[in-house]
Amino acid sequence: MKKSIFYHAGCPLCVSAEQDILNFIPENEVEVIHLGQDKAKVRDAEAAGVQSVPALVLANGNVLHINFGASIEDLK
Amino acid sequence: MKKSIFYHAGCPLCVSAEQDILNFIPENEVEVIHLGQDKAKVRDAEAAGVQSVPALVLANGNVLHINFGASIEDLK
Repeated sequence: MKKSIFYHAGCPLCVSAEQDILNFIPENEVEVIHLGQDKAKVRDAEAAGVQSVPALVLANGNVLHINFGASIEDLK
Repeated sequence: MKKSIFYHAGCPLCVSAEQDILNFIPENEVEVIHLGQDKAKVRDAEAAGVQSVPALVLANGNVLHINFGASIEDLK
Protein backbone atom coordinates (compact mmCIF):
# COMPACT_ATOMS: atom_id res chain seq x y z
CA MET A 1 0.00 0.00 0.00
CA LYS A 2 1.22 3.47 -0.83
CA LYS A 3 2.02 5.49 2.25
CA SER A 4 0.70 8.90 3.13
CA ILE A 5 3.37 11.58 3.55
CA PHE A 6 3.24 14.18 6.29
CA TYR A 7 5.33 17.23 5.38
CA HIS A 8 6.29 19.68 8.06
CA ALA A 9 8.96 22.21 8.92
CA GLY A 10 9.52 21.66 12.60
CA CYS A 11 7.41 24.55 13.81
CA PRO A 12 5.46 24.06 17.05
CA LEU A 13 2.20 24.10 15.10
CA CYS A 14 3.61 21.40 12.80
CA VAL A 15 4.62 19.20 15.73
CA SER A 16 1.21 19.54 17.30
CA ALA A 17 -0.52 18.65 14.02
CA GLU A 18 1.84 15.71 13.54
CA GLN A 19 0.93 14.28 16.92
CA ASP A 20 -2.76 14.66 16.17
CA ILE A 21 -2.44 13.05 12.74
CA LEU A 22 -0.38 10.14 14.07
CA ASN A 23 -3.21 9.44 16.47
CA PHE A 24 -5.35 8.54 13.45
CA ILE A 25 -2.90 6.99 11.06
CA PRO A 26 -0.79 4.02 12.09
CA GLU A 27 2.85 5.07 12.10
CA ASN A 28 3.82 2.48 9.49
CA GLU A 29 1.36 3.97 7.02
CA VAL A 30 2.75 7.49 7.07
CA GLU A 31 6.17 8.87 6.21
CA VAL A 32 7.14 12.06 8.03
CA ILE A 33 9.36 14.51 6.16
CA HIS A 34 10.91 17.61 7.73
CA LEU A 35 11.31 20.05 4.84
CA GLY A 36 13.47 22.38 6.90
CA GLN A 37 16.06 19.61 7.30
CA ASP A 38 15.51 17.93 3.95
CA LYS A 39 15.38 20.78 1.45
CA ALA A 40 15.76 18.37 -1.49
CA LYS A 41 12.23 17.14 -0.82
CA VAL A 42 10.64 20.59 -1.17
CA ARG A 43 10.36 20.01 -4.91
CA ASP A 44 8.59 16.67 -4.41
CA ALA A 45 6.18 18.26 -1.97
CA GLU A 46 5.40 21.07 -4.36
CA ALA A 47 4.89 18.60 -7.22
CA ALA A 48 2.40 16.73 -5.04
CA GLY A 49 0.42 19.94 -4.60
CA VAL A 50 1.65 21.03 -1.19
CA GLN A 51 1.31 24.80 -0.82
CA SER A 52 2.00 25.14 2.88
CA VAL A 53 3.05 23.02 5.84
CA PRO A 54 2.01 21.10 7.77
CA ALA A 55 0.34 19.07 5.04
CA LEU A 56 -0.66 15.48 4.58
CA VAL A 57 -0.41 13.97 1.10
CA LEU A 58 -2.68 10.96 1.07
CA ALA A 59 -2.10 7.69 -0.74
CA ASN A 60 -4.96 8.68 -3.09
CA GLY A 61 -3.10 11.84 -4.08
CA ASN A 62 -5.31 14.28 -2.18
CA VAL A 63 -3.51 16.96 -0.20
CA LEU A 64 -4.81 18.04 3.18
CA HIS A 65 -3.30 21.35 4.24
CA ILE A 66 -3.65 21.36 7.99
CA ASN A 67 -3.71 24.73 9.68
CA PHE A 68 -0.93 26.98 8.45
CA GLY A 69 2.65 26.90 9.62
CA ALA A 70 4.66 28.16 6.67
CA SER A 71 4.32 28.61 2.94
CA ILE A 72 6.22 26.17 0.75
CA GLU A 73 7.76 29.24 -0.90
CA ASP A 74 9.39 30.16 2.39
CA LEU A 75 11.08 26.75 2.63
CA LYS A 76 12.97 27.02 -0.65
CA MET B 1 -14.86 8.78 24.84
CA LYS B 2 -15.45 12.27 23.57
CA LYS B 3 -16.08 12.38 19.83
CA SER B 4 -14.27 14.49 17.31
CA ILE B 5 -16.47 16.90 15.35
CA PHE B 6 -16.03 17.53 11.65
CA TYR B 7 -17.56 20.88 10.66
CA HIS B 8 -18.22 21.59 7.02
CA ALA B 9 -20.49 23.64 4.80
CA GLY B 10 -21.33 21.28 1.98
CA CYS B 11 -18.81 22.66 -0.51
CA PRO B 12 -17.13 20.16 -2.87
CA LEU B 13 -13.82 20.72 -1.08
CA CYS B 14 -15.57 19.99 2.24
CA VAL B 15 -17.06 16.75 0.93
CA SER B 16 -13.71 15.60 -0.40
CA ALA B 17 -11.99 16.37 2.92
CA GLU B 18 -14.77 14.61 4.80
CA GLN B 19 -14.27 11.44 2.81
CA ASP B 20 -10.53 11.56 3.42
CA ILE B 21 -10.96 12.15 7.14
CA LEU B 22 -13.52 9.39 7.52
CA ASN B 23 -10.96 7.03 6.03
CA PHE B 24 -8.85 7.59 9.14
CA ILE B 25 -11.41 8.03 11.87
CA PRO B 26 -14.03 5.37 12.52
CA GLU B 27 -17.45 6.83 11.76
CA ASN B 28 -18.70 6.27 15.30
CA GLU B 29 -15.90 8.43 16.69
CA VAL B 30 -16.70 11.52 14.68
CA GLU B 31 -19.80 13.70 14.47
CA VAL B 32 -20.32 15.49 11.17
CA ILE B 33 -22.02 18.90 11.28
CA HIS B 34 -23.10 20.85 8.19
CA LEU B 35 -22.96 24.49 9.27
CA GLY B 36 -24.80 25.63 6.16
CA GLN B 37 -27.82 23.58 7.22
CA ASP B 38 -27.38 23.92 10.96
CA LYS B 39 -26.67 27.61 11.51
CA ALA B 40 -27.29 27.30 15.25
CA LYS B 41 -24.06 25.34 15.54
CA VAL B 42 -21.90 28.11 14.03
CA ARG B 43 -21.54 29.61 17.50
CA ASP B 44 -20.36 26.29 18.98
CA ALA B 45 -17.86 25.87 16.19
CA GLU B 46 -16.50 29.35 16.72
CA ALA B 47 -16.25 28.82 20.48
CA ALA B 48 -14.23 25.67 19.80
CA GLY B 49 -11.77 27.74 17.79
CA VAL B 50 -12.97 26.98 14.26
CA GLN B 51 -12.03 29.82 11.92
CA SER B 52 -12.85 28.19 8.60
CA VAL B 53 -14.37 25.03 7.23
CA PRO B 54 -13.75 22.22 6.70
CA ALA B 55 -12.31 21.76 10.18
CA LEU B 56 -11.91 18.89 12.57
CA VAL B 57 -12.23 19.58 16.30
CA LEU B 58 -10.48 16.74 18.08
CA ALA B 59 -11.49 15.14 21.34
CA ASN B 60 -8.39 16.76 22.91
CA GLY B 61 -9.66 20.21 21.92
CA ASN B 62 -7.18 20.82 19.11
CA VAL B 63 -8.63 22.24 15.90
CA LEU B 64 -7.32 21.07 12.54
CA HIS B 65 -8.32 23.47 9.78
CA ILE B 66 -8.15 21.37 6.65
CA ASN B 67 -7.61 23.22 3.39
CA PHE B 68 -9.92 26.20 3.08
CA GLY B 69 -13.52 26.07 1.96
CA ALA B 70 -15.15 29.04 3.65
CA SER B 71 -14.55 31.39 6.53
CA ILE B 72 -16.71 30.91 9.61
CA GLU B 73 -17.63 34.59 9.24
CA ASP B 74 -19.27 33.82 5.91
CA LEU B 75 -21.51 31.18 7.48
CA LYS B 76 -23.14 33.50 10.00
